Amino acid sequence: MTKIVIIGGVAGGASAAARARRLSENAQIVMFERGPFVSFANCGLPYHIGGEIKERNKLLLQTPESFLARFNVDVRVMSNITAINREAKTVTVHNLIDGSEYQESYDFLLLSPGANPIVPPIPGVDNPLTHSLRNIPDMDKILEVIALNKPEHATVVGGGFIGLEMMEAFHRLGIRTTLLEMADQVMAPVDREMAGFAHAEIRSKGVDLKLGVALQGVEFVANEHVTALDAGENTAHQHLEGQLHLTLSNGETLTTELLIMAIGVRPETTLAKAAGLRIGELGGIWTNTAMQTSDPAIYAVGDAIEEPDFITGNPTIVPLAGPANRQGRMAADNMLGRHETYQGTQGTAICKIFDLAVAATGKNEKQLKRAQIAYEKVYVHTASHASYYPGAELVSFKLMFEPHTGKILGAQAVGKDGVDKRIDIIAVAQRAGMTVEQLQHLELTYAPPYGSAKDVINQAAFVATNLMKGDAKAIHFDEIDHLSSDQVLLDVRNPGELKNGYIEGAINIPVDQLRQRINELPKEKEIVIYCQVGLRGNVAYRQLVNHGFRARNLLGGYRTYAFAKA
Amino acid sequence: MTKIVIIGGVAGGASAAARARRLSENAQIVMFERGPFVSFANCGLPYHIGGEIKERNKLLLQTPESFLARFNVDVRVMSNITAINREAKTVTVHNLIDGSEYQESYDFLLLSPGANPIVPPIPGVDNPLTHSLRNIPDMDKILEVIALNKPEHATVVGGGFIGLEMMEAFHRLGIRTTLLEMADQVMAPVDREMAGFAHAEIRSKGVDLKLGVALQGVEFVANEHVTALDAGENTAHQHLEGQLHLTLSNGETLTTELLIMAIGVRPETTLAKAAGLRIGELGGIWTNTAMQTSDPAIYAVGDAIEEPDFITGNPTIVPLAGPANRQGRMAADNMLGRHETYQGTQGTAICKIFDLAVAATGKNEKQLKRAQIAYEKVYVHTASHASYYPGAELVSFKLMFEPHTGKILGAQAVGKDGVDKRIDIIAVAQRAGMTVEQLQHLELTYAPPYGSAKDVINQAAFVATNLMKGDAKAIHFDEIDHLSSDQVLLDVRNPGELKNGYIEGAINIPVDQLRQRINELPKEKEIVIYCQVGLRGNVAYRQLVNHGFRARNLLGGYRTYAFAKA
Repeated sequence: MTKIVIIGGVAGGASAAARARRLSENAQIVMFERGPFVSFANCGLPYHIGGEIKERNKLLLQTPESFLARFNVDVRVMSNITAINREAKTVTVHNLIDGSEYQESYDFLLLSPGANPIVPPIPGVDNPLTHSLRNIPDMDKILEVIALNKPEHATVVGGGFIGLEMMEAFHRLGIRTTLLEMADQVMAPVDREMAGFAHAEIRSKGVDLKLGVALQGVEFVANEHVTALDAGENTAHQHLEGQLHLTLSNGETLTTELLIMAIGVRPETTLAKAAGLRIGELGGIWTNTAMQTSDPAIYAVGDAIEEPDFITGNPTIVPLAGPANRQGRMAADNMLGRHETYQGTQGTAICKIFDLAVAATGKNEKQLKRAQIAYEKVYVHTASHASYYPGAELVSFKLMFEPHTGKILGAQAVGKDGVDKRIDIIAVAQRAGMTVEQLQHLELTYAPPYGSAKDVINQAAFVATNLMKGDAKAIHFDEIDHLSSDQVLLDVRNPGELKNGYIEGAINIPVDQLRQRINELPKEKEIVIYCQVGLRGNVAYRQLVNHGFRARNLLGGYRTYAFAKA
Repeated sequence: MTKIVIIGGVAGGASAAARARRLSENAQIVMFERGPFVSFANCGLPYHIGGEIKERNKLLLQTPESFLARFNVDVRVMSNITAINREAKTVTVHNLIDGSEYQESYDFLLLSPGANPIVPPIPGVDNPLTHSLRNIPDMDKILEVIALNKPEHATVVGGGFIGLEMMEAFHRLGIRTTLLEMADQVMAPVDREMAGFAHAEIRSKGVDLKLGVALQGVEFVANEHVTALDAGENTAHQHLEGQLHLTLSNGETLTTELLIMAIGVRPETTLAKAAGLRIGELGGIWTNTAMQTSDPAIYAVGDAIEEPDFITGNPTIVPLAGPANRQGRMAADNMLGRHETYQGTQGTAICKIFDLAVAATGKNEKQLKRAQIAYEKVYVHTASHASYYPGAELVSFKLMFEPHTGKILGAQAVGKDGVDKRIDIIAVAQRAGMTVEQLQHLELTYAPPYGSAKDVINQAAFVATNLMKGDAKAIHFDEIDHLSSDQVLLDVRNPGELKNGYIEGAINIPVDQLRQRINELPKEKEIVIYCQVGLRGNVAYRQLVNHGFRARNLLGGYRTYAFAKA
């Protein structure tokens, strides 16, 4: 009888427990969780705070009782593991309820301890109005501050998933919000110019977004208020009441009533380190592709580990629920004699930012530059479904690929409709090893309410293949402000479109007049063409080149150029 | 200078014209269209009738003038080609406006004539209240009947895309509707049991759906009504006013005020046949993968041709806009010296049926059986996104694959949210040659508003892989009513769920009580397990098998079983 001990009862741990039981009725399975809850919906926490998910109960996917009944798993919550004793194959368990301590033996141990919020050592950050959000008790504390203090202003530090979701939650609650982000963009998985769409959306909702600004100091000033117990006030209130005075790196100060630290998370490796397990170069627990640590009896999964990047094969840390769940299932398989191997992580991710979805898969341009991987890129902005059918929204899409092979390196998309679908399509195509040339042939669902006869993906593939075949020559948004005297800028949009913005110094000849007016252009110079999204620019480009001009077309057109500055 | 003549100015023809011009500024391009419009949105016609697309103008994507201005294409509408003179390399053009006739020469000819609605020779079907819907004049005629006669009841014959869309259009307009379908299901691309969801949806909206019923006779009874011209009535009205008496194959009769024939379409091959071009075995114009007909100077694309099926390589006819557009682009490439090859058609398709989307890609089970291709199949019903986040809807999903290799053969999905996405994912995976085993590892976008950590696709892949590895043994919905005396039916749902339906003769032991009550089951019999969607059934299956029972699990659970009968 195999005995499996699992440390951590959320995504990876819970998946492993259920899978192990399905494989073996005889295995003894014990799952320890430090907190009071197992298998809760941690991705749902911000949405319960914001009120979209009304019932707190909905976040509790399983209970120790339901796990026992369905899977015969011995779940022990409020149980902190203080040591792994590899020689003895036991763990030391500290019962947080009665303070007792005991040893539990294992044949196989699974580490699924997750990650911890990074809270930098900013003076004053440890105060009753500053919280991270990682689990249900964290959520409850934030809800308590909101219920008792009724804050009118909140500040979120960090523009990642949790930070953005908390920003939106506060906005929904009618709490004015400041979002501080040290980098020059939110949503790090996408590149700066794609994040511009998010910045515009965030500001349009009235959120005070401060980019390139760090939090440097926090001062808690308690209110002088004595709890009126007989008026029904809670004593907790007294302790919580007050303001925070924030000092920012740009010299500003800010008064706020609730502060969320959402800078990021760091793999929880305390136990693994103490047990002498190998730690990877990025600071996560090292595993092989069977999810085995340097001790063959100990497996590790989820946010605590390093995993191979699908594109580069190098270690990466991707603290997301999808990989954690699949890794947990796979670890159970392998503990019970199967031979499953983890196929690498693409880092597919999506975030709702008010009415926008922002999503990515594979490598972004920042990562490709850092890794010195040669790439080419295209931008398209195309309707999510037939533009003549109601509800169509632009999908702004970026695709990166190897210049000569056309191998897909990564993609990003932003828009109000159909963003998840387009990134999923690329996530599948990339995993399958497809090239951009092959993406041209994809045969996707089309009816006016759902897509277009030439989908966003087909169109991006056409543009990419044109580049690869020399049928198009690109210029990108960040080169437009630095044209040489050998270049002339040509705006081929209709004059009526220019009132919403244009690029300084451009000649305007609408594409449909270009044949007649082609002699207005200087044949000795390179013509840098742009239109609104790049499509008419390509028509103009082909015309000019076929007439013997040198030319380039701004991929993604004025739209990419303009939002890159947002 | 290459001269390209194109017959047919909609999807394939228009795509070819635009692409040809982008490749060559010198080519002479002449595009003929029999009707008054080019490049109109034929997929949008039912939605304009139903009022979702308010402006008729939105359906006119390009005009002859815009085509000339942007692409320097000589568009000649109202021009019927009456002959192809292959020796002389000319076509004979009949000008439908002035009746004149002339020859136009070509270097390359592109046939993009489309398909014609099939109208069977039913007595009386040729009357002023019976219409097909294929182009803008057809649409205008239907709109005229609606405007003048204000029908209270309409009948649609045929449950394919156009028939279903017209049914919905009438329903939106408050016109009571009967839908007649000769087969036992609507939406032929999916299998009967998946169409059951559509049948339930259609009937829930009050549409009178008659399956297995054909139209046998039509009688037009004109109203005795003299147009009151001075009251502003149109003379057209007098001609149109009346009822239709329909005779049906089931002996019923039906009085209706507007009849739409939407049985299907047939490739338009008149010209091709007269010119002696090779016609394929299914009756479409034959082409090679370069889109070339048996005459190397003549190309053909779109609804008029046969094309290779992506799975079998056999000829197929798939009259859909996506393939037509891509084939047109490719034909232009090849006429101008490129070497593009068409990669086959999967038949990816989707239809909106009221609040449902019904979609498919690859082969369906009916086709696999006919082609005698060995297959295995799985069903899952899983939330379109995290079930705790508002707006989640069940996606009912069917996946077919080769039993030993796991190669994807086809997929179908039905639901109110995320159906297009799931079928697109499979369309990509199938085109890339992925197996169901590989689908397990797909890393798709996940945040609560968009997906689940284990997506519908991952879950279907888990079930399929379990079958392949022998970790699961399936029984299907159509076997349940024919169990042998060696089998016992076990319902593992909670008693409260049974009030919405159960299968006669089942023992009920909730999955969470199964370990305690396992001795209530006869060890010598095969236990046929079912739950609501198949998930708890699998947990029970593993438990029973690991306890030494023989068992099978109903894939897709009670939900598949129940809707298969709808």
